[in-house]
Amino acid sequence: MPKVSLAHGNGGAASQELLGDLFLRYLSSPVLHCLEDSALLEEHAGRLAFSTDCYTNEPPFFPGGNIGTLAVHGTINNLAMRGAMPLALSLGVIIEEGFPLGDLEEIIRSVGLATELAEVAVVAGDTKVVPRGRMQGICLSTSGIGLVAPGSEISGTDIEEGDVVIVSGNIGEHGLALRNQGGKLPACCAGEIGPMHFMIREIMENFPDATHALRDPTRGGLATSLVWLASASAVCMEIDRQAIPLCEGVRRFCARENISPFYLASEGRCILCCDPQYAEEVLALMRTIPIGANAGIIGRISASPMGRVRLHEADGSISFLDAL
Amino acid sequence: MPKVSLAHGNGGAASQELLGDLFLRYLSSPVLHCLEDSALLEEHAGRLAFSTDCYTNEPPFFPGGNIGTLAVHGTINNLAMRGAMPLALSLGVIIEEGFPLGDLEEIIRSVGLATELAEVAVVAGDTKVVPRGRMQGICLSTSGIGLVAPGSEISGTDIEEGDVVIVSGNIGEHGLALRNQGGKLPACCAGEIGPMHFMIREIMENFPDATHALRDPTRGGLATSLVWLASASAVCMEIDRQAIPLCEGVRRFCARENISPFYLASEGRCILCCDPQYAEEVLALMRTIPIGANAGIIGRISASPMGRVRLHEADGSISFLDAL
Repeated sequence: MPKVSLAHGNGGAASQELLGDLFLRYLSSPVLHCLEDSALLEEHAGRLAFSTDCYTNEPPFFPGGNIGTLAVHGTINNLAMRGAMPLALSLGVIIEEGFPLGDLEEIIRSVGLATELAEVAVVAGDTKVVPRGRMQGICLSTSGIGLVAPGSEISGTDIEEGDVVIVSGNIGEHGLALRNQGGKLPACCAGEIGPMHFMIREIMENFPDATHALRDPTRGGLATSLVWLASASAVCMEIDRQAIPLCEGVRRFCARENISPFYLASEGRCILCCDPQYAEEVLALMRTIPIGANAGIIGRISASPMGRVRLHEADGSISFLDAL
Repeated sequence: MPKVSLAHGNGGAASQELLGDLFLRYLSSPVLHCLEDSALLEEHAGRLAFSTDCYTNEPPFFPGGNIGTLAVHGTINNLAMRGAMPLALSLGVIIEEGFPLGDLEEIIRSVGLATELAEVAVVAGDTKVVPRGRMQGICLSTSGIGLVAPGSEISGTDIEEGDVVIVSGNIGEHGLALRNQGGKLPACCAGEIGPMHFMIREIMENFPDATHALRDPTRGGLATSLVWLASASAVCMEIDRQAIPLCEGVRRFCARENISPFYLASEGRCILCCDPQYAEEVLALMRTIPIGANAGIIGRISASPMGRVRLHEADGSISFLDAL
């Protein structure tokens, strides 16, 4: 089985070969193909969003995807959380000497496919190979530049009292997929995660003033993201536990394993704080889009206690949700 | 000695603490301090350059700097190689559980200092902590957005016959500093590397049409970069070995250790292919700027053999320089 060697990362002939035979085969941007020290983008008008994320999943393959798809979706979704459409991505790859070339190819093929479907390109990249043992497997980092729609003012600090809190789909499935490699997972966890920018664009085009804040509940899960939002806007989140979208498989699995689904990463999902006058229509629109099919209203914004998240149970009792 | 723990990377309270106590203390951009999913930049006019690089130096501290300074200078210099001034940087950090917090602080302090001196800010970031043994030490990745001066057309493909080849300073010092931790290094290798964008801006402002191509001879060294340029522009490089700037310490060290300095990474240096009518003036200007003090003309561009680099010896004999 062919493996990645140190020479693949030394910047010389073997590096060029790996670039040509593998990376450029799946990443088809003409700008990337120039292989200059940096990529030049076309001129455009408007404000930019800029985001970066590192991906260290071990093993790099998991139900529903791999580290390559995740690296693309993760960065696109971070941009989308400011109402930005992705303009260009960069990809950094750190590989351990001896990593199977076939696995690398599958990961980069997935990056290529994910960028095509998301209608964005990897225009800049870097590959380093480290000696065996210096790292296990592979790590990726993607950065993204996004173009913000004119007039868009989406920020975690802009939530207002009375806003309606929407979650765009079932939480926890992705987090369980990453966590558990034992084959005991509920079937829903094998579903693909995806990019949210097309959904966000639809919402912004149809209801330009509806969205006050967006956040994707990845690391630290829904609970940590809700606390962050409550704190950033100095408001209180009143969340109805029963309303949080959760598939039956995840609910049962979490109960059995004594895991709280509220702290599981949920890539491909967002929390949307919505002007109440548009909330029902925004929700209806989201549900017409596959990635938003399970969207639901989970709560409302109140004035105090500031920075806190109150979880309302079916029996009327209330507890506080904390960050991880 | 306090160490980095897995909780520092889980996105929860400990992560916020590390962010607040360490990262935000040294990286003072108000945009970064928002901690949104992506950073919003001010509106600006013009074409953008985009670049990314991963840094895996082990150990992370070396004569003349550390992985933090290198990550800043490397990405700024990649942008400068297209004639772009840095607009914003992102920083990804992957740390092994147990990494000394003091070392992390020193690295991030260096990032902060390097960005301040370069007049650019880290506006977006991500930190991941991986379990002990999954990686050794620390890896960084920086991406950068740069603004290209109007009308600037600098590209490795734009070299013309007759162009003069300038190298901006002594080569090999940085590469030896990274390679050798044994204390046998010549003193010149402990010199700081630096960002080149201010020098490039000076050249472009004073001689807007002079620069046809730029490349920084990092991985693969001067030889690999010269071959890349010759190939990208389908020209031949006629290089005078005696003219290549090399400090006496590196020359002796390389001779003794049987290393070719032409393949050593030289961060903080560039190859500049210059319109011949401006070459002497550009060289004179470069020498007035500290980072260009040792700049020299190392050769000329001829038509053929296309894509090759011919090395002319003092005795008139000629050999070919290949990529690593």
